[in-house]
Amino acid sequence: MKKSYALGIDFGTSECRALVLDLVSGKEIAVSSSKYPGGKNGVLLDPKNPHVARQRPSDYHAAMKRAVSTAVKAAAGKGVAAEEIKGIGVDATGSTPLPVDEKMVPLGMKKEFKSNLNAQAWLWKDHSSAEEAALITAKAKRLRPEYLAKCGGAYSSEWFWSKILHCRNVDKNVFDAAYSWMEFSDYIPALLAGVEDPTEAKRNVCAAGHKGMYNESWGGLPDKRFLRALDPALADLRDRLYEKAYPSNEIAGGLDKKWAKAFGLPKGTPVGVGALDAHFGAIGSGVAEGALVKIMGTSTCDIMVVPKRKKLRDIPGVAGIVPDSVLPGYVGIEAGQSAVGDIFNWWVMVALGKDERLHKALTRKASVIKAGESGLLALDWNNGNRNVLTDPKLTGALVGQTLLTEDYEIYRALVEATAFGALRIVERIEEYGVKIRKVVNCGGIAEKNEMVMQIYADVMNRPMEVAKSAETVAVGAAIMGGHAALKKEKGYEKPEKIQKRVCGVKKKVFKPRAAEARTYKKLYALYKKLHDAFGVEKSGADLYPVMKELLEIKREASA
Amino acid sequence: MKKSYALGIDFGTSECRALVLDLVSGKEIAVSSSKYPGGKNGVLLDPKNPHVARQRPSDYHAAMKRAVSTAVKAAAGKGVAAEEIKGIGVDATGSTPLPVDEKMVPLGMKKEFKSNLNAQAWLWKDHSSAEEAALITAKAKRLRPEYLAKCGGAYSSEWFWSKILHCRNVDKNVFDAAYSWMEFSDYIPALLAGVEDPTEAKRNVCAAGHKGMYNESWGGLPDKRFLRALDPALADLRDRLYEKAYPSNEIAGGLDKKWAKAFGLPKGTPVGVGALDAHFGAIGSGVAEGALVKIMGTSTCDIMVVPKRKKLRDIPGVAGIVPDSVLPGYVGIEAGQSAVGDIFNWWVMVALGKDERLHKALTRKASVIKAGESGLLALDWNNGNRNVLTDPKLTGALVGQTLLTEDYEIYRALVEATAFGALRIVERIEEYGVKIRKVVNCGGIAEKNEMVMQIYADVMNRPMEVAKSAETVAVGAAIMGGHAALKKEKGYEKPEKIQKRVCGVKKKVFKPRAAEARTYKKLYALYKKLHDAFGVEKSGADLYPVMKELLEIKREASA
Repeated sequence: MKKSYALGIDFGTSECRALVLDLVSGKEIAVSSSKYPGGKNGVLLDPKNPHVARQRPSDYHAAMKRAVSTAVKAAAGKGVAAEEIKGIGVDATGSTPLPVDEKMVPLGMKKEFKSNLNAQAWLWKDHSSAEEAALITAKAKRLRPEYLAKCGGAYSSEWFWSKILHCRNVDKNVFDAAYSWMEFSDYIPALLAGVEDPTEAKRNVCAAGHKGMYNESWGGLPDKRFLRALDPALADLRDRLYEKAYPSNEIAGGLDKKWAKAFGLPKGTPVGVGALDAHFGAIGSGVAEGALVKIMGTSTCDIMVVPKRKKLRDIPGVAGIVPDSVLPGYVGIEAGQSAVGDIFNWWVMVALGKDERLHKALTRKASVIKAGESGLLALDWNNGNRNVLTDPKLTGALVGQTLLTEDYEIYRALVEATAFGALRIVERIEEYGVKIRKVVNCGGIAEKNEMVMQIYADVMNRPMEVAKSAETVAVGAAIMGGHAALKKEKGYEKPEKIQKRVCGVKKKVFKPRAAEARTYKKLYALYKKLHDAFGVEKSGADLYPVMKELLEIKREASA
Repeated sequence: MKKSYALGIDFGTSECRALVLDLVSGKEIAVSSSKYPGGKNGVLLDPKNPHVARQRPSDYHAAMKRAVSTAVKAAAGKGVAAEEIKGIGVDATGSTPLPVDEKMVPLGMKKEFKSNLNAQAWLWKDHSSAEEAALITAKAKRLRPEYLAKCGGAYSSEWFWSKILHCRNVDKNVFDAAYSWMEFSDYIPALLAGVEDPTEAKRNVCAAGHKGMYNESWGGLPDKRFLRALDPALADLRDRLYEKAYPSNEIAGGLDKKWAKAFGLPKGTPVGVGALDAHFGAIGSGVAEGALVKIMGTSTCDIMVVPKRKKLRDIPGVAGIVPDSVLPGYVGIEAGQSAVGDIFNWWVMVALGKDERLHKALTRKASVIKAGESGLLALDWNNGNRNVLTDPKLTGALVGQTLLTEDYEIYRALVEATAFGALRIVERIEEYGVKIRKVVNCGGIAEKNEMVMQIYADVMNRPMEVAKSAETVAVGAAIMGGHAALKKEKGYEKPEKIQKRVCGVKKKVFKPRAAEARTYKKLYALYKKLHDAFGVEKSGADLYPVMKELLEIKREASA
């Protein structure tokens, strides 16, 4: 493949990152980021409803302008001219739907709706639509069980239709003013391509399939009859959404004049069809058959791929199984935990009321104690449970505290809880015949916190590898943006081949320690009891031994 | 009754308090306190074992000297001469046994044992003897079921025999060097009376009956055969303990010369037989038939009295039923929670790492939210459960936390947990036919924290009264010390009559609020589920609805 560069634009939960990547050497030429200016860490909250999490579309514009123009300028400073950047890949969080008008202007950017939270983007972690999710699940169970089989057996309150239906139920004004709704990861590529009619935007199959119940096997989006059973207004809306969704090796359009100027890039530069951030993160981390990629940040997303030719069973409790959603030619499996770093942040910044610098001190102290020594056991459900219970109406739990339990012991228990939750997902995927040969971690936590990685290795009793790049998501976006732009050129390469050259793991692999793994095996058995008692109807889980066994494990660990 | 004064000396968990009381007017002439100089808040801890809590006997001496001499001097300044102080009453925490030699010198005060934690006083809240308690319970169940019937069905790790047997098991040196063991509340009166042989000290029936399995119906202390079944060394020890225990209207002896000098009181001033602090606190709060007195401090003690002539059934799960242990002529009922203020202190000082001033700020914020609004539910077992489960191998639990849960919400949930635990005890006592007509609270928390009292009123759906005096325990000690000294004089009065004159409640009564009480009824039902799931074998408690109902109650409360 001849010398070429691509730009990856990654929209995370609190900032936009831009990266210029050398597609041949894998060198990261320039990277820049810009936080969303509004809300708390970029998120608009409702003090009366802890489930609400929204974002201002204008914040996306502002952060993107700054991040991309800075990266392009920095690349130029390193000898990569704007003209050498051949393609743009875009990813964003999701399901993060936003209502738009006929001209694809987000309602949240219009004067009359500026201060209305319902007119903004409904961030992935918004959990206000639990009732609607339950209704959709119940109706699908009766009318369209095949829909549920592809999304783990339950439709989530975090997803597209739940959120739109909730808007219809609580804010008819906004719902009626919305000509269409777009996933964040569709809105940005269409915006950059100068699309001015939301029905003409090329929607991505990744968000459509994982969050929108889109599947070619049943003709795309859910049919009108089903939508009518939820609410007739949704059936009407279907005509103003899309018929077909595209994989991210397709082009969404050429860069619009206005944005070309803002970025300092040539007009017409190809912009690829978008994807969800985690899925591009998986690509940037070298996802391949048998490798589980864990994107660990405020939440965690688990991604795997299975070649389409292999027969893949539906996996109950695992969020999504969607053809072509990660790599073309593969079925993408997506699972995840709805809060991971967010739980650690909760403890440090909300409960303890400190700033994020305390993470370091707590980690240092928590690293010294052994598995089981705190006597604590926690559940990782402070933001509900995405997998394998797919139930947003679950909350956190902590068991085992005495009068001497310290802040750092609780911190460690929360880390362990997320590791137990992660193990539960791994077990479920393997129970359904998908062998996991290695685990590659990426994202802020994998990068920054060695204790977390070591605990994950000990809890799962598997080595934890960490992706080489600190920018795996933007790298994945650049790979796919570049691939989409260049795939018809001579010497064209499949994404898998680019991955092999560009992606890799760090030298340091976190290996499970036998003694810790033995203790965690016992603790995990107790975690499953707690998990089932609170999370599984009629589980019959017996909690009577839990506190006693925790004390016994503590005694042994302290000896 | 003619003008007379008495001195009450009260040994709490962290300090000694001394009070000069006018037995006729009830006026508190002078009061003084002195903290135990050693350890953390007076308690010696073992960093390797969270269950250990010991105290230095020399600290008792030092604090008592300072507190009493100061109070006596202050009384003199107010015109009450030392000669007018007619009697001394003493109470102390318990079961707090300490090993002594043939001359009644505590081993912990001897050079060779000074730094040995096992040679010190074993503070009531020391929980290191759980194995031994379980053994005693098991043996008694088989051999002497009548012993258990009087102590709620299980012998506690906090009590006399568990601690002594644990010492025998872990530190033969100390056990062998101990000629006898004395309850803290026996050691002090004997010390003041100049007793120099522990077998000659008059032991109190309050500690003996509630903590030492002493009951006249089976001939005093447990018989040798039973003790031999536990350990032959205990059977030997029995000969060096005591045959008979006395109520606190008896005289232990006259004030010894050395202590008379240290206090500034006449030599020979009568010193009454001691009692446990809570029991004198109940007297000072006006305990009478139908009135439950709650002594609320680091832990809570619940005291009631039932006239001996009434038939009182044994109450399973309630710590102690002992004739004459509170007021002569009545059976004393003692129940309690092994941590209350200690749990709030844990949250503020250990988990949050702040100092005690934060109690105020957290209380202020927690007062503003409504019952159920936090969405949280906690168990009050950070220090085990004394009643009604009598199981030290239980720990704390917190359920319902989200990513927005604040420090003050957890604080309030911990307060509520202790209120639920208190209600569980009240229910149990009433289930066994003892009607509770009013609840009088005393102690630091009842004095200082109106939010706690209001939550207790709402949770129990009963008015909460607060004892008038802030010194109820020392008042009770002075009443009983004075009564013991003066009972043979002309115009002698029964303690009940002195109580009527001296004791009373504050004007402000905390009344239950209907809406809060309704919400707490729902929350208490969930508390019982948690309580039974973790605390009761084969309870079959179903926790699946708990998190969901907490969210629903939170939604309603926030609406």
